[in-house]
Amino acid sequence: MKFSLEAQDPNTKARAGRITTDHGEIETPIFMPVGTLGAVKAVHMHELKTFIDAQIILGNTYHLYLRPGTDVIEKAGGLHKFNSWDRPILTDSGGYQVYSLSAIRKIKEEGAEFRSHIDGSKHFFTPEFVMDVQRKIGADIIMAFDECTPYPCDYKYAVNSMGMTHRWLERCVKRFKETESPYGYSQTLFPIVQGSVYRDLRKQSAEFIASMDMEGNAIGGLSVGEPDADMYEMTELVCDILPKEKPRYLMGVGTPANILEGIALGVDMFDCVMPTRNARNGMLFTQSGIINIKNEKWRSDFSPIDPDSDCEMMRTHTKAFLRHLVHENEMLGAQISSINNLSLYLWLVRQARKKIKEGTFTPWKKEMVVKLMTRL
Amino acid sequence: MKFSLEAQDPNTKARAGRITTDHGEIETPIFMPVGTLGAVKAVHMHELKTFIDAQIILGNTYHLYLRPGTDVIEKAGGLHKFNSWDRPILTDSGGYQVYSLSAIRKIKEEGAEFRSHIDGSKHFFTPEFVMDVQRKIGADIIMAFDECTPYPCDYKYAVNSMGMTHRWLERCVKRFKETESPYGYSQTLFPIVQGSVYRDLRKQSAEFIASMDMEGNAIGGLSVGEPDADMYEMTELVCDILPKEKPRYLMGVGTPANILEGIALGVDMFDCVMPTRNARNGMLFTQSGIINIKNEKWRSDFSPIDPDSDCEMMRTHTKAFLRHLVHENEMLGAQISSINNLSLYLWLVRQARKKIKEGTFTPWKKEMVVKLMTRL
Repeated sequence: MKFSLEAQDPNTKARAGRITTDHGEIETPIFMPVGTLGAVKAVHMHELKTFIDAQIILGNTYHLYLRPGTDVIEKAGGLHKFNSWDRPILTDSGGYQVYSLSAIRKIKEEGAEFRSHIDGSKHFFTPEFVMDVQRKIGADIIMAFDECTPYPCDYKYAVNSMGMTHRWLERCVKRFKETESPYGYSQTLFPIVQGSVYRDLRKQSAEFIASMDMEGNAIGGLSVGEPDADMYEMTELVCDILPKEKPRYLMGVGTPANILEGIALGVDMFDCVMPTRNARNGMLFTQSGIINIKNEKWRSDFSPIDPDSDCEMMRTHTKAFLRHLVHENEMLGAQISSINNLSLYLWLVRQARKKIKEGTFTPWKKEMVVKLMTRL
Repeated sequence: MKFSLEAQDPNTKARAGRITTDHGEIETPIFMPVGTLGAVKAVHMHELKTFIDAQIILGNTYHLYLRPGTDVIEKAGGLHKFNSWDRPILTDSGGYQVYSLSAIRKIKEEGAEFRSHIDGSKHFFTPEFVMDVQRKIGADIIMAFDECTPYPCDYKYAVNSMGMTHRWLERCVKRFKETESPYGYSQTLFPIVQGSVYRDLRKQSAEFIASMDMEGNAIGGLSVGEPDADMYEMTELVCDILPKEKPRYLMGVGTPANILEGIALGVDMFDCVMPTRNARNGMLFTQSGIINIKNEKWRSDFSPIDPDSDCEMMRTHTKAFLRHLVHENEMLGAQISSINNLSLYLWLVRQARKKIKEGTFTPWKKEMVVKLMTRL
């Protein structure tokens, strides 16, 4: 993996860059659609390319390990071959899912024991095992196995958890360096900063993570329920410590406004289930603001879903048509809504990149944060 | 509407033709994907064009009248404007749905009173009212309001019902001729032959329907549970009476084999929910046979969904990937399966047309009926 910085906003810490992987380039800042089970929910691969222009998608180690199972993906020749997505992929380590989804879990120094949320079967994830699984899944960017602390989290728990996440990271890096991709292309490992909302811990964690000297770095344990102000404070503190010449990935964030604020603080990569999950509940992000498409008010509104969208489908279909589909629980409603939201998110980061390069990011951001979060 | 016959198979009654409507041409024999609520379930409009090459889709008067409501479609400027489908549309009259879906119904000479299956609200469909609704929905081809008799149906009931269907037809035709399309393009009305599985009634009904001298004719009340042999016998009898120079539409049929047999008997148009409904249950039609994609046997089968398909998506995605999606209840599984089945159905009628023109329909049909219905 290579990362090159192409522009720096004069007024904020926002930057435009380019990540090069063996599966192609990623222009940053970037939003990565979440494909939990190896496919973005309700969206075809061809649509991710033509309507959304997704440059990288995310897969979930926890889910893929359980279903279809690492063996199936390995036999397929890796996730790219399995799901026919030939652009870059990132897999998270499953740390977050072990804590948020699994039925019963025991965290020990050795690793995390848990029961599957699907069938209750018992599993044990160690840092080494998670590296091996992610090697077999074969994403271009893989993530360290960490503990994502909840919010609120008392100081003592946060200290101990961070310590373990750091020791697990050393084991991840060791295993990662001892192994190689089974599929002939290169993979890179991102470590994850933890430390909850404690400034001293975040500083300590960011310094430790930076010292590991990996090709990119991630910020975890945020967007888990804390106030936005805390998230921004921690992000800024961490970004100022993480090396400039490497991409920074803020995990699990967020709303369009969160993403713009994150970019302003120096973040290059984002992922979140929000655009697709909210789409399935009838909540649309548009360039004019947020729409609850189920509302009666759209019943006879024959204006385009988003007249300003650069996605043709949103300029063609009307709010009334989409409202009808969503109201009747037609899958096609969720499909169109998901494409709408993802195309808005990708448009947003493309625009941010353009504005950073033009040096007009700050005024544009100020206007967009208000506009995009307006309830229509 | 115009219909021209282009070829006649020398060994069967199969024919190739061309229907011209104000929204474009339809090459027959044709299969019409069902878009109950104005959109084919789980399939985008752009996919109907690019992956499936659907030439005409079907909408449901009963459903569209209830949701989004005739007023919304009228305000939109008709169904084509509402759903952004610019090729031909056919709407059925709602007769079938009144009997199969609505909670309580009373059939009188005047019309059918029923309660909505959604909210129990009371409605009254008369032949005149159904013509008015279909004028407002604005399909290119609209259907007469009839009673679709169930199977089995005693002779006396079938006689009386057929008589009423014929009287309703006269009222439909009268109202249709007194009115015109509100949207400036032409609409045509197809009457429907009934008569259950009784030869004398089918003959009587077909003669009556032919005497109405409309631009096309339909055969209803079949594929409702009777043995295939009865369906074919009635279809043959009716096709021999209905005029050659007009398209014949066999409503609600059927499996790939049913369609090939129907074509051989002189049918030009088909519709059925089977390809999309079965797709949502994991049943795939392929050129090699029928697949239950949920089966464990496909878990690590990395061969294409249908290697012979003329739909690129089915040559790209593997059975193992689709099995994974369907197994995990991912919407995308239903989406890909629906496109697969519809693309197979449309391929089938295109091939039939080609074989009819080449004079090789009979041996090809014999081979395909066995092949397509094989369980893999």
